Amino acid sequence: MRNIKFVLSYDGTDFKGWQTQPDCRTVQETLENAIKEITGEKVHVLGSGRTDAGVHAVGQVANFRTSSRLTPDAFLRAVTTKLPEDICIREASEVDYSFDSSRHAVRKLYRYIILDSPLKNPFMRKYAFRCKHRLDARKMAEACKAFLGTHDFHSFETNWPNRNTSIRTILHISVNRVGEFIWVDIEADGFLYNMVRSIVGTLIQIGRDRWPVDCVKKILEAQDRMEAGPTAPPEGLYLMRVSYE
Amino acid sequence: MRNIKFVLSYDGTDFKGWQTQPDCRTVQETLENAIKEITGEKVHVLGSGRTDAGVHAVGQVANFRTSSRLTPDAFLRAVTTKLPEDICIREASEVDYSFDSSRHAVRKLYRYIILDSPLKNPFMRKYAFRCKHRLDARKMAEACKAFLGTHDFHSFETNWPNRNTSIRTILHISVNRVGEFIWVDIEADGFLYNMVRSIVGTLIQIGRDRWPVDCVKKILEAQDRMEAGPTAPPEGLYLMRVSYE
Repeated sequence: MRNIKFVLSYDGTDFKGWQTQPDCRTVQETLENAIKEITGEKVHVLGSGRTDAGVHAVGQVANFRTSSRLTPDAFLRAVTTKLPEDICIREASEVDYSFDSSRHAVRKLYRYIILDSPLKNPFMRKYAFRCKHRLDARKMAEACKAFLGTHDFHSFETNWPNRNTSIRTILHISVNRVGEFIWVDIEADGFLYNMVRSIVGTLIQIGRDRWPVDCVKKILEAQDRMEAGPTAPPEGLYLMRVSYE
Repeated sequence: MRNIKFVLSYDGTDFKGWQTQPDCRTVQETLENAIKEITGEKVHVLGSGRTDAGVHAVGQVANFRTSSRLTPDAFLRAVTTKLPEDICIREASEVDYSFDSSRHAVRKLYRYIILDSPLKNPFMRKYAFRCKHRLDARKMAEACKAFLGTHDFHSFETNWPNRNTSIRTILHISVNRVGEFIWVDIEADGFLYNMVRSIVGTLIQIGRDRWPVDCVKKILEAQDRMEAGPTAPPEGLYLMRVSYE
């Protein structure tokens, strides 16, 4: 058996997220069906993490074991012909049999795109969160520095079973504006459920001048989800990159 | 009766074009239904021109006559609440009763976006035409100059009833590349049916080195649609701006 690694991008709009569920169109099942059409095998495609319904990926990583003898490049070309237009395999490679795209990930980078405009933008409605209120991106950039480093992010997670700890390390966080777009980049050694979206929901409160720039430290210390901002909607979120040793 | 002018943008993906047709979701009917919900009137919304199924608009212009006393700004806000997310009214104004957004248009600007990439881009699949072949944008920019000025564009029109003449004047045409995107801007005093898309289909033949850079003059002179390139697909086309005296 061999172990094949894919780097994937997908438009999350029409998927009910990554993970296979009954009667839902998911990324995992779509990939597994496409691979089955090529190899005849019912493989299990393991993703670096689950993305929720409507969340996009530019650089999701997944792997699967196969007895097929196809080269990685032949896999890429053959499986691509069986995939719908909203998923793309960007790279394929053969990896050590023990490689696990979820457990072995050491860093992930997410991007969240906000469009702060009083006007609807028909073209971005599925690709950015439109905030009707103008945001002060400089205050958001100043406030986000308090997230850097190792903290208990319990205030920024939605309850989720099987988590031992909510301590994570944010290696990079930045807020930038170009025109009416603000994007928030967060790279960490791991993410809790809804962590990016609740961090962004909090930064939006600060950008709207509803909460002070220095509120983040207190929210982290409270270890209470009710202290942080709301979970920002999925359409602005992109999994950009997953890194391994 | 008053005459109200709208500047509209819409994502053409889920519309069967501008013009009302039985059992189809069209931009015209969607607007007329939204206005009816506000004023109770069955108005006729006249567009500056019909856009085809899948074609987008950033600055379409339309007008309608109404007995409502709402100010243009109140119209904009009220009708917006009745519109789906893929149409946006960007501006509303009151115009002379005789104003006709179709007959009085003196210039229109269209943009066509090409993504020349061997890789699928899941996010742009409805917003640009993906050409699998790498294109030489400099040759396309050089070739496009032959379209400038007044010509009989019969070689670049799909047959369409009720046209007296296929002579039009192209005031501006340019081809630019940024990264993997090439966009073609064409401004003219009017356009024939499928004119932009057949000009782009021709420029793509030149960009692929299938046809020489100097072929445009001969194609124009032939006055034969079979001499020009194929009609490029709708998803790359945007109506950017309509100008009036």
